[in-house]
Amino acid sequence: MQTIDRLSLNQITTGKWNVREAVEGCVKADIPWISLWRHKVDEIGLNETKRLIQDAGLKVSSLCRGGMFPAATLAERQKRLDDNKRAVEEAAELGTDVLVLVSGPSPDKDIDSARQMVAEGIEKLVPFAEEYGIKLGIEPLHPMYAAERCVIVTMAEANAIAECYAPQQVGVVVDVFHVWWDHDLFHQIRRASGRILGFHVSDWIVPTPDLLMGRGMMGDGVIDIYKIRTAVEQAGYQGPIEVEIFNEEIWNRPGDEVLDEMKQRYLIHV
Amino acid sequence: MQTIDRLSLNQITTGKWNVREAVEGCVKADIPWISLWRHKVDEIGLNETKRLIQDAGLKVSSLCRGGMFPAATLAERQKRLDDNKRAVEEAAELGTDVLVLVSGPSPDKDIDSARQMVAEGIEKLVPFAEEYGIKLGIEPLHPMYAAERCVIVTMAEANAIAECYAPQQVGVVVDVFHVWWDHDLFHQIRRASGRILGFHVSDWIVPTPDLLMGRGMMGDGVIDIYKIRTAVEQAGYQGPIEVEIFNEEIWNRPGDEVLDEMKQRYLIHV
Repeated sequence: MQTIDRLSLNQITTGKWNVREAVEGCVKADIPWISLWRHKVDEIGLNETKRLIQDAGLKVSSLCRGGMFPAATLAERQKRLDDNKRAVEEAAELGTDVLVLVSGPSPDKDIDSARQMVAEGIEKLVPFAEEYGIKLGIEPLHPMYAAERCVIVTMAEANAIAECYAPQQVGVVVDVFHVWWDHDLFHQIRRASGRILGFHVSDWIVPTPDLLMGRGMMGDGVIDIYKIRTAVEQAGYQGPIEVEIFNEEIWNRPGDEVLDEMKQRYLIHV
Repeated sequence: MQTIDRLSLNQITTGKWNVREAVEGCVKADIPWISLWRHKVDEIGLNETKRLIQDAGLKVSSLCRGGMFPAATLAERQKRLDDNKRAVEEAAELGTDVLVLVSGPSPDKDIDSARQMVAEGIEKLVPFAEEYGIKLGIEPLHPMYAAERCVIVTMAEANAIAECYAPQQVGVVVDVFHVWWDHDLFHQIRRASGRILGFHVSDWIVPTPDLLMGRGMMGDGVIDIYKIRTAVEQAGYQGPIEVEIFNEEIWNRPGDEVLDEMKQRYLIHV
């Protein structure tokens, strides 16, 4: 990367900052994009978030997150769908056109049925999202999260669902941490041409300290980020690149310092 | 399962037992099969292990493990190959016909080249193994081990390599913990028909306590073990079923107690 024009702070990277602090941090660091998390937006409200973003002149790359479709009962699945509709409204209000979907775990041992519930949930959400001009970005999570967070764990699965829709309705989000291990990755990135809605970077560090909070800063791990970025661009994606790092140690460092390092690493390793 | 005729103790489940204790434990618990680990065999030597196994009337389901093929230099790769040849000799000496292969991590960020080194290592090992009547069982490990243990992380990859050989030369080992999340699993099990060389059971517990030592006893997690076992049998596998659980808490319990629970859980959940 020659510039940071496409760099986006995914808010979870600075997990201890609230929205105001994250916005101010981006402004100070000249980072043009931000990805917001709903629980952070909730803390200060949608209107205040919107005002802060607009005053700062930031662009919102995506809202995290919708999804979590599978549930044991129809009533609970309807509740999840309603929540996804609120997420769509929030995304539109905040000025992004991408809602990231983390599909959710299975309520029981039947992972195939849970995957079906994801497909059904998306099917129901699409017309609503379209009204608001919101694209749904299916993000496959690493298979180690299959039981607790997301039954969609490969690009192949995400593509198969996304292909049921037009690219302006449903696409995929490529996060290097989740997909780097996949022998079929580059084929699936090509398959996703025209419907990649986001690109997330971090690194896989060795030894891996923790399932959830063990991601590393770009350059500290084993992922060939540059190669994946190039493939994603060849598949037509020229949008913002989010740095999304779940890591307790990084959370505990001063946010401004994290953003500075993030910029440097981005220019070298992404 | 109606009986424990096919039940095998993979020695790592009782990680604090030496070979003698594991053999005595199996005899006491009427478990007819055992899978041995090379570092445990090394502690007392090959001849003593062989004598203990024979005196006890135990059958050896497999030897763990060969593999670890990728390395940065040709010299180091040759060293790994030599070690694999010793593993083949040991397997034959111990009276099993299956050497389990854990392929190894990549020496650098180029995971595709590492996978190629795995294929080349196996190619070189096959004629040697065949002389000894040893089948090579490629075990795909969970993608969360891709960076540290094994670049072969799906049944599809294991099948693709195995299919270059006759089923009596190279096959695959199906471990539910490693493959349960795979949307393509049942197709790949069918594809492996006639060349499944082992079936390993444990469970994926939620929340997952640890990447390496976080496996659970069958029935304590989310894996539909019975469904996978049925598919593996439909693909022609009727051999021993190894219980292989890496779990510190289980290691700290009295081994006899673990074997008793293992038998009960096997009859209910496998």
